[in-house]
Amino acid sequence: MARLEPGSTIGIFGGGQLGRMLAVSAAELGLKTHIFSDVAGPALDVASAHTVQPYTDAGAVAAFAKAVDVVTYEFENVPLAAIDAAAVHAPVAPGRKALEVAQDRLVEKTFISELGISVAPFANVESEADFEPVVQTTGLPALLKTRRFGYDGKGQRRITTKQDLSAAFDELGREACILEGFVAFTKEVSVIAVRDRNGATVFYDLPENTHKNGILDTSVVPTDLSEATVAAAQTIAKQIADALDYVGVLAVELFVSKDGDGSSLRVNEIAPRVHNSGHWTQDACHISQFANHVRAIAGWPLGATDRHSDVTMTNLIGADVEAWPKLAAQAGAAIHLYGKGDCRPGRKMGHVNTLRALSPADPPDP
Amino acid sequence: MARLEPGSTIGIFGGGQLGRMLAVSAAELGLKTHIFSDVAGPALDVASAHTVQPYTDAGAVAAFAKAVDVVTYEFENVPLAAIDAAAVHAPVAPGRKALEVAQDRLVEKTFISELGISVAPFANVESEADFEPVVQTTGLPALLKTRRFGYDGKGQRRITTKQDLSAAFDELGREACILEGFVAFTKEVSVIAVRDRNGATVFYDLPENTHKNGILDTSVVPTDLSEATVAAAQTIAKQIADALDYVGVLAVELFVSKDGDGSSLRVNEIAPRVHNSGHWTQDACHISQFANHVRAIAGWPLGATDRHSDVTMTNLIGADVEAWPKLAAQAGAAIHLYGKGDCRPGRKMGHVNTLRALSPADPPDP
Repeated sequence: MARLEPGSTIGIFGGGQLGRMLAVSAAELGLKTHIFSDVAGPALDVASAHTVQPYTDAGAVAAFAKAVDVVTYEFENVPLAAIDAAAVHAPVAPGRKALEVAQDRLVEKTFISELGISVAPFANVESEADFEPVVQTTGLPALLKTRRFGYDGKGQRRITTKQDLSAAFDELGREACILEGFVAFTKEVSVIAVRDRNGATVFYDLPENTHKNGILDTSVVPTDLSEATVAAAQTIAKQIADALDYVGVLAVELFVSKDGDGSSLRVNEIAPRVHNSGHWTQDACHISQFANHVRAIAGWPLGATDRHSDVTMTNLIGADVEAWPKLAAQAGAAIHLYGKGDCRPGRKMGHVNTLRALSPADPPDP
Repeated sequence: MARLEPGSTIGIFGGGQLGRMLAVSAAELGLKTHIFSDVAGPALDVASAHTVQPYTDAGAVAAFAKAVDVVTYEFENVPLAAIDAAAVHAPVAPGRKALEVAQDRLVEKTFISELGISVAPFANVESEADFEPVVQTTGLPALLKTRRFGYDGKGQRRITTKQDLSAAFDELGREACILEGFVAFTKEVSVIAVRDRNGATVFYDLPENTHKNGILDTSVVPTDLSEATVAAAQTIAKQIADALDYVGVLAVELFVSKDGDGSSLRVNEIAPRVHNSGHWTQDACHISQFANHVRAIAGWPLGATDRHSDVTMTNLIGADVEAWPKLAAQAGAAIHLYGKGDCRPGRKMGHVNTLRALSPADPPDP
């Protein structure tokens, strides 16, 4: 596949805020975007073209793919059939394999652990017959999660006794699940990696992430992680990206535990796309995760991931967004609103990047 | 006029790269945009709606103004009749007066000098009868410029002898002209000011600007101007903005001359809009000129104008843009392409902001 020339069109599956921010970054690079989504979403406002049809409409997907020069996605639950229908007419990046792995928690955890990378103890739960052995594998407490379509804490239940398991399985609709043992972590961090078509991979600084009600609340950069831990985290992300022959931004969420003298890392989950814990790069880095995802899938040189400011990214969830006038008035606060009309509890409405001068312990690269 | 809520629509007269970058910044703030332009331009790709009609079509302008919550413009030659037709239905910012002044070099120079601000010596040229007295006023060499519709060095001729004047006046179509005396300047700088509805005004750091063939080539920040000169330049910009009861980004181009112990300043021209010499703010400041223009006209709090990096903005004019793959590969280079299909000599196709760590002489604000 040839490098995309300016004026080319990037097709994006998904019309939410990630698609919107990708479209804006593509526009800044002189590229057009075409959004394919099953519902009208905020990305449509900034795209040069859009198709609103079910992902299962193979004809609509084919027409979309014919109209664009590369296809990417802003969420991991694009049906694989849509990817396959698109791939006949245009290259797809990050590609099918990353989706296959990320769409099913069991496949994902198995894939990662087979690379020799630590994850929480996990086991497959398909029926009552599994209840006894899985608890042996994971210990208690544990988390029961649907294997598919979970996000932002949805589709999961905390299990403290064996008896909880039956009720939780029923509550989750008796869908195929995974039971995950608890990891006693000291912090949650993520690697935002960008891999180009030739396998060259660059990394942003690691944010420390906090969650509220299962939804990302803040990402703070820098962390106090040692250089060795950062290097280990980046090696994990590179291993995963290489194994997926990945092109674009890959997010890897990690648990950090104190383990004797050092820190140990366990992968929580991966996201084969730009990621909420990388939104701080929009204002604290020369080149954002969105710009670098576009560069990678377009076959362009990757941009520098240097950070010029310290930063706290805070999500505006549901009614949080009503504080926008106050936030907009704060010095050093760059506010981002997603243009979603309907403000519902738990809905991601925007985020704010609060910037500080680079901490002295963390001088700029020469 | 009430503060615009997120989800409101900003109407923009003009569909070029400035409108495009304004639309992108509006989208980042959760606002929609509607472009009104007499030709299809690159801004249409990132706007939620557009109208392509002559500016003289009062009905189309009225429908556009009814569909938006505030009207702004990306160029100073919007016909005043269009502004008046729009103003019936929506507030217009920066407003009519700024356009009236900026559309005619004679009106502009007269307005500025009547504020007690220095400009180059100038005189009105409407017929041969004026040739003798105007040269007395300006001295030689001088520049003959059409009073209206000149930009990027277009519509002007250099005059070295009185005899040149007649030929130049013919070449410029015997339109109303202004003759401007030469200013022996050491550098050209500009003030990018942002004024809100209450008259509060903030300033970006001053860039030093260089031109090539009459077109801006580079803007470099920081300059070596003294604090006193910077303060004097900002005072000039504030005086002009106040006199125009201005809302939004105002650019004031200044000549700096060595004058005894200090520097003296003369206004070259003003632009009642976001300005090419402010494009560096996109990547070197927390909040760009585009975001701050949107904030100002929407009645939002202005964002901080702090600069976190040193920077050189270089325009990509005509075939310059063909170097984009090399530029995209440079560390610290943020490339911006305007999505214009047709690459003509002298056409602004993009720009690149090359970032450097903040110089030690210029520490970040606490």
